Amino acid sequence: MNEILDEIKNINYKEIDEKIKNFLVNEVENTKSNGVILGLSGGIDSTIIAYLCAKHVKDKTFALLMPDSDITPNDEFEDAKLVTNELSLEHKIININPIHQEFQKYIPEDDFSLGNLRARIRSNLIYYYGNLKKYLVLGSSDRSEYLIGYFTKFGDGSADILPIVSLYKTQLKEFGKYLGIPERIIKKKSSPNLWKGHFAEKEIGATYEEIDCILYCLFDKKMTIEQTNQKIGIDTKVIQKIIQMNHRSEHKRKIGRAHV
Amino acid sequence: MNEILDEIKNINYKEIDEKIKNFLVNEVENTKSNGVILGLSGGIDSTIIAYLCAKHVKDKTFALLMPDSDITPNDEFEDAKLVTNELSLEHKIININPIHQEFQKYIPEDDFSLGNLRARIRSNLIYYYGNLKKYLVLGSSDRSEYLIGYFTKFGDGSADILPIVSLYKTQLKEFGKYLGIPERIIKKKSSPNLWKGHFAEKEIGATYEEIDCILYCLFDKKMTIEQTNQKIGIDTKVIQKIIQMNHRSEHKRKIGRAHV
Repeated sequence: MNEILDEIKNINYKEIDEKIKNFLVNEVENTKSNGVILGLSGGIDSTIIAYLCAKHVKDKTFALLMPDSDITPNDEFEDAKLVTNELSLEHKIININPIHQEFQKYIPEDDFSLGNLRARIRSNLIYYYGNLKKYLVLGSSDRSEYLIGYFTKFGDGSADILPIVSLYKTQLKEFGKYLGIPERIIKKKSSPNLWKGHFAEKEIGATYEEIDCILYCLFDKKMTIEQTNQKIGIDTKVIQKIIQMNHRSEHKRKIGRAHV
Repeated sequence: MNEILDEIKNINYKEIDEKIKNFLVNEVENTKSNGVILGLSGGIDSTIIAYLCAKHVKDKTFALLMPDSDITPNDEFEDAKLVTNELSLEHKIININPIHQEFQKYIPEDDFSLGNLRARIRSNLIYYYGNLKKYLVLGSSDRSEYLIGYFTKFGDGSADILPIVSLYKTQLKEFGKYLGIPERIIKKKSSPNLWKGHFAEKEIGATYEEIDCILYCLFDKKMTIEQTNQKIGIDTKVIQKIIQMNHRSEHKRKIGRAHV
């Protein structure tokens, strides 16, 4: 697996930085938008986007920090505040807990659905400011999460543009070092924090290194399951699970289907 | 214009009914969903979907009625209740006003953005029940609104499947008669009701008969602006406005753009 991991990580981050810069600048210009808006959780994906925006479109960037005071770990929220301070980003903090509580008065309780609702409330707030300020909404999906559908449909999956969707999570860790984001943010366990103790790798049942090696072999190298298994030595059952996640989430990457 | 209008309206509604039936039944089966969920406003589009569901997948249909008690006209809400009673549809009523009020505590006031927020709160509630019951979310976009982008991105535009997106508004009025929906619902002015006194044709600046004739000539008959103008006698400025609305809303019909 190490050989493939090295291959995945060994890309030109300076070139990617330049491409994303051009993408951000051009998109703002072509769509006649006033700027870009992002939700900043304090996780690696949104932090990298914040650093890219601060580097390339700083005076046109607005960040929303939207913890749920009952759910979001305090150190995650502290990391988000650290990033906005470090970068002096224009930002606003909204605790989504009272909004989430208000919704709960009218719907039956269900932990999973209530988790997704948190992501959707955040999307509503981001789009509210997007409408208000005529700013483009940046989505923080990376290639790993995008391909296996590890995001909330019409929640964090809702965006106008996706600046880092071409990069795997393991590449983002390297890219994070290149951009100089705090080491703690690179090293901590990835979490969507839709409920307490919600960790990505635990929920998916594989590490991001494994997921990325599998996706890279299947999607970039066009290998079969057997070839992937031989190349990286990961159990075919895990490989099949990742393929299944990709297939089952296809609807999340498309606009609603019609009958013709 | 009348010749083209007749051509638009003169399609086989029995055949369309059959196609949509197959579509609904197959989608539920193929996605292993337990049923379908729709937001029912009392307008013609959602009423037609309710009638189609009641006809073809009745025991698997759940309707949400989500008025905003400050905004939704009382007769619109009464029409929605009439439809659920007429069809004996399983349904739930949620007044979104208190949720909308809770959001407003944390955001600056802006009528347009607050209107879009109403559509997004409704989408959150529909997807909440969709998650909970493992039901497919039906979107109520018709072809006229879809092509000119007359819907809220990630609001009423959010759906898993779009049963009536192939039909123009003027066709839906005929289809409504075929399905036997109440005449009052067919005849009333179309309104998204995102704010008080919000009427579709007034906001767009053309009647649906004009819009549909223009879209039909341009998209179905592949005519030029000049040919369209000659055929239906509508001012080229109006035709150009509809083309512009189609172009400017392209992002609403696509998943977020990436840099590669």
